Amino acid sequence: MARNKHPEETVNLILEVAFRLFMEKGYEHTSIQDIIDHLGGLSKGAIYHHFKSKEDILIAVTDRMTAESNQMLAVIRDRTDLTGREKLKTIFWESISRPVQDDIFTVAPDFHNNPKLLFSLLHDTIEEAAPNYILPIIKQGISDGSIETDYPEQLAELILLAANVWMNPMIFDSSEEESYRKFMVFSQMLQGFGLDIVDSEMLERLQELASIYQKSK
Amino acid sequence: MARNKHPEETVNLILEVAFRLFMEKGYEHTSIQDIIDHLGGLSKGAIYHHFKSKEDILIAVTDRMTAESNQMLAVIRDRTDLTGREKLKTIFWESISRPVQDDIFTVAPDFHNNPKLLFSLLHDTIEEAAPNYILPIIKQGISDGSIETDYPEQLAELILLAANVWMNPMIFDSSEEESYRKFMVFSQMLQGFGLDIVDSEMLERLQELASIYQKSK
Repeated sequence: MARNKHPEETVNLILEVAFRLFMEKGYEHTSIQDIIDHLGGLSKGAIYHHFKSKEDILIAVTDRMTAESNQMLAVIRDRTDLTGREKLKTIFWESISRPVQDDIFTVAPDFHNNPKLLFSLLHDTIEEAAPNYILPIIKQGISDGSIETDYPEQLAELILLAANVWMNPMIFDSSEEESYRKFMVFSQMLQGFGLDIVDSEMLERLQELASIYQKSK
Repeated sequence: MARNKHPEETVNLILEVAFRLFMEKGYEHTSIQDIIDHLGGLSKGAIYHHFKSKEDILIAVTDRMTAESNQMLAVIRDRTDLTGREKLKTIFWESISRPVQDDIFTVAPDFHNNPKLLFSLLHDTIEEAAPNYILPIIKQGISDGSIETDYPEQLAELILLAANVWMNPMIFDSSEEESYRKFMVFSQMLQGFGLDIVDSEMLERLQELASIYQKSK
């Protein structure tokens, strides 16, 4: 394959091939050379023109997933038929039930080898997702009486840090039993803010995710 | 100065000099060469014999602080005159009132340039401090009726993750106002577990710490 004349198409192609290989072999077992070998003639130079390292490709791949996830968050945030509490409950359910979660756990990058990915996740969680998606919902919940706190910005951060970082088995390895227990404490924490959002369907799905991750490690 | 015949003394000397320079100039503005210049004739090779990088020196410096902190935690954990809740309250007070906290905030390493330090902090928090110091206290609190949860291991992790990571201004930059609001949400979270441990003296000290950090950045 000749080098693509349209750089964004080249980038898309690299990301699609990389994502497929990460899924098949796992991120740690995929080399830049593997990606090149599956790009049908694209040179190493062409890849490095767009990405400085394999980790940068991983970040671009996860950024795409984050963009999809943010779109889902925006749709729920902007619904007019739900209270603040119901929106948060819907978000937790959607977050854990979307098939893309299986994908991320199948890629299973080791954060210790990829510190930029951890910083990127922390940044997205605290600087993007918390203020843009969770905060407006918590403010609505305070208005409609379904959430109790005087500190909506900080509650948004704390909830997402617990959900995206602490309960993320890629960052803190957890058995199914531990994942379940983390979720139960998380749920008790939310109750302290008037938020009763956990049901048995959620718990079942969380245990399933932990099990997928354990298998792909 | 000739190379020390006793390697542990050389290591101690490097760490003391490095710590003093980190305090004076800040970690980011201290080079390996600065450290060598203050070691009175110790060669670059002698330093690299013990430490692979400046970040490794930083980790050794912070490991020493962690060891001191763990000693304080052990003393409180083993007291026989306090309930579980009182022990947690004492730990929070000691953690924020010890002068060493000022030191850490004065060194002010940028975690983005020092991912190993972040991983080391996450590891110490979840794998060491939570199970060895906070967990036994929570279990005591459950027995004596001062703490309410069925998941002591996970509550220990969640409390420390919030306190050591989320409320750590070196990881998540916070104004004094934000630090105060984070602590208030943290305190509301603890109340959901039966833990009413915050007082006005604590709040005052937290604001002071945030202010020290803002000045040394």
